[in-house]
Amino acid sequence: MNLLKGNAIVGQSGGPTAAINATLSGVIRGAFECPAIDTIFGAINGVEGMLKGTICNLNEVFADEKDLKTLENTPAAALGSCRKKLPSPASTEEKDVAVFEALFAFFKKNNIRYFFYIGGNDSMDTVAKLSAYAPKVDYEMRFMGVPKTIDNDVAGTDHTPGYGSAAKYIAASMQEIIRDTAVYTVKAVTIVEIMGRDAGWLTAAAALPAKVCGVAPDLVYLPERIFNFDEFYEDIEKAFEKHPNVVVAVSEGVRLADGRYVCEAVSDSGLDAFGHKMLSGTGKALEIAVKNKLGCKVRSIELNILQRCASHVASLTDLKESVMIGKASVRAAARGTTGKMMCFRRVSDNPYRVKAVSEDIQKIANVVRAVPAEFINERGNGITDAGIDFILPLIKGENRPEYRDGLPVHFVIKA
Amino acid sequence: MNLLKGNAIVGQSGGPTAAINATLSGVIRGAFECPAIDTIFGAINGVEGMLKGTICNLNEVFADEKDLKTLENTPAAALGSCRKKLPSPASTEEKDVAVFEALFAFFKKNNIRYFFYIGGNDSMDTVAKLSAYAPKVDYEMRFMGVPKTIDNDVAGTDHTPGYGSAAKYIAASMQEIIRDTAVYTVKAVTIVEIMGRDAGWLTAAAALPAKVCGVAPDLVYLPERIFNFDEFYEDIEKAFEKHPNVVVAVSEGVRLADGRYVCEAVSDSGLDAFGHKMLSGTGKALEIAVKNKLGCKVRSIELNILQRCASHVASLTDLKESVMIGKASVRAAARGTTGKMMCFRRVSDNPYRVKAVSEDIQKIANVVRAVPAEFINERGNGITDAGIDFILPLIKGENRPEYRDGLPVHFVIKA
Repeated sequence: MNLLKGNAIVGQSGGPTAAINATLSGVIRGAFECPAIDTIFGAINGVEGMLKGTICNLNEVFADEKDLKTLENTPAAALGSCRKKLPSPASTEEKDVAVFEALFAFFKKNNIRYFFYIGGNDSMDTVAKLSAYAPKVDYEMRFMGVPKTIDNDVAGTDHTPGYGSAAKYIAASMQEIIRDTAVYTVKAVTIVEIMGRDAGWLTAAAALPAKVCGVAPDLVYLPERIFNFDEFYEDIEKAFEKHPNVVVAVSEGVRLADGRYVCEAVSDSGLDAFGHKMLSGTGKALEIAVKNKLGCKVRSIELNILQRCASHVASLTDLKESVMIGKASVRAAARGTTGKMMCFRRVSDNPYRVKAVSEDIQKIANVVRAVPAEFINERGNGITDAGIDFILPLIKGENRPEYRDGLPVHFVIKA
Repeated sequence: MNLLKGNAIVGQSGGPTAAINATLSGVIRGAFECPAIDTIFGAINGVEGMLKGTICNLNEVFADEKDLKTLENTPAAALGSCRKKLPSPASTEEKDVAVFEALFAFFKKNNIRYFFYIGGNDSMDTVAKLSAYAPKVDYEMRFMGVPKTIDNDVAGTDHTPGYGSAAKYIAASMQEIIRDTAVYTVKAVTIVEIMGRDAGWLTAAAALPAKVCGVAPDLVYLPERIFNFDEFYEDIEKAFEKHPNVVVAVSEGVRLADGRYVCEAVSDSGLDAFGHKMLSGTGKALEIAVKNKLGCKVRSIELNILQRCASHVASLTDLKESVMIGKASVRAAARGTTGKMMCFRRVSDNPYRVKAVSEDIQKIANVVRAVPAEFINERGNGITDAGIDFILPLIKGENRPEYRDGLPVHFVIKA
């Protein structure tokens, strides 16, 4: 084993989740336990912070270890995020080379030998590019990607940290929405729009209450299947035969056979008072369509960013796994691993058990992992038992964060 | 004391809340303990169920008392709801008199002497009309209203059961939304639309995190004040001087000086693909307006029905008070009270303490209680400390419902 002594840096990137700070806590805990790592720095706003030199000393910030527990219950990204895309490491253009030179100069200056980046597909691209560029520099470093995304669409891993908590929020909210809509006897359709442009993992979670408490949305549509309005109206009419309150879960990214998003097909002639095109969301578009076609009461609900930041109802399984994978990434790097992403491998279904393994990041970055065909029913309007069985373990366990005066306590890193 | 022996009936009416089933549990618990009451029936879908004779025997449904605890953690209305408005009790029109005759025939047939109705303003109207009609019938009965509404706009009471849980959901969600929006450095406005057509109580709850954790929406607009676009843009520009992520909480019911709703002012020229007028919500309308005026990134979020049914984050104070007021309504009726609504009176601020008292329902029904002027700041864009101090005790305490396989356990009454 090659013992590489020095400092470490950790950054967060991409959209916030309820578990990304738990992963950050795991990386910090891992660094505290690692003899090779002296100081662990936090980069404010990811790679942008490294380019600007805005960093903080996490050994000092978390001098009291119990603050790490509070960090684990804090949503969003405590270090701030960014959406910066690095240039190609093969580029010989001056401005591109300058970016890499600036970053490696920053690493050298701060004796940083370990780089941990917590994020989604785009963030893994950053790790892949840095580790691809590294051989050009005479400075030994180890680059590790730690996935997070509520979308669960990262390849190479059983699932992503952050997905379980978002899935739990969606499933619990769907159950509550179904109870709410059931109180009246008037025929009504409720359409719930859920995040997911290319993959339907989050929308699939809406079906979970079916197995647990026997209520579920009547219809579930994912972007993995082509959306057809005629079949949709037929599906609703059929659901009305069972009860007057029909509930539909739909991914924001559903598309028609001609490739257009559903929302483009419905609202493209609407203009606001300023004469601008009003592109409504998918839920709103379907609301308008159903109202016009079936004439019944229709309501649409967009879960919006709450589905990614509702840490008050986070999955304990997700938070524990997020800490675990963060720690594992440090241990792997200390053992000499670089240019890899940490992944979950499901080693047992019953009892559910995962372990953290590292996979080559060059093969993972920029690949979207869709919901497999066997998780979607034949008609394309529901989730199979196999799909529910796959997702259900990820939402189990209640986190019970600390509350003060009726509200959850969060930890704020002051840069 | 006039001991009136017989059966009781309880119904739920109006929009669902996270606490209306806790009040139902309180009424049932009260009936179980009351020597004068033999059987307590539940009316399915409120007064509609009484007219149709669709009732259930709650002594049988809750033969196992621990199911009442689960009922208290179940959102929406376990007995179903209705929106039926009774005719005037003074009407001599045949069809109007027939409604009252049918109801009293139903009461007599089932030896029902006690009538409990859990609902908002419209439901109190039902209780007021029945008790006003009662003297015409030679059959002694007692009519009690038990308020519930997330809107908190019922007169005569310090606050309404259901408000505290909705306020807690809104405050917790606002805190999470603010964390989420803070991760990027790009200038952005996030507008959160909150329920409340005529009263701003729910939107005022968005300001609570200010006192607890030091973060809060930058701007809060209630329908109690006239909304002015120029002032709104000025407010946002001023907030940008402090930080790049401006968060706005706004009541769906804000209106302009000319009386139009804000949403009418912005989107009235938009048409959907079917040529229908697209009336967007208030949040969406402000999103469009800010995007056009300031050109920055803008997002709108509508909390929608989740704010009334999110029992997973219910306020323990609210649920306990809801059970208590339900029980108190039965005790008051048994003592001879009729034609009254149960109210909370705040008997102490520190420690916070309320007691249940009964008030004349004829004075309460159909009156909307607005947020008092001293709870809104001078500029009309924020909540005062007095307002926060009034609301904060209502969201305190965590309920911690039972979960199974990662989801809260609910109780379903099968009619």
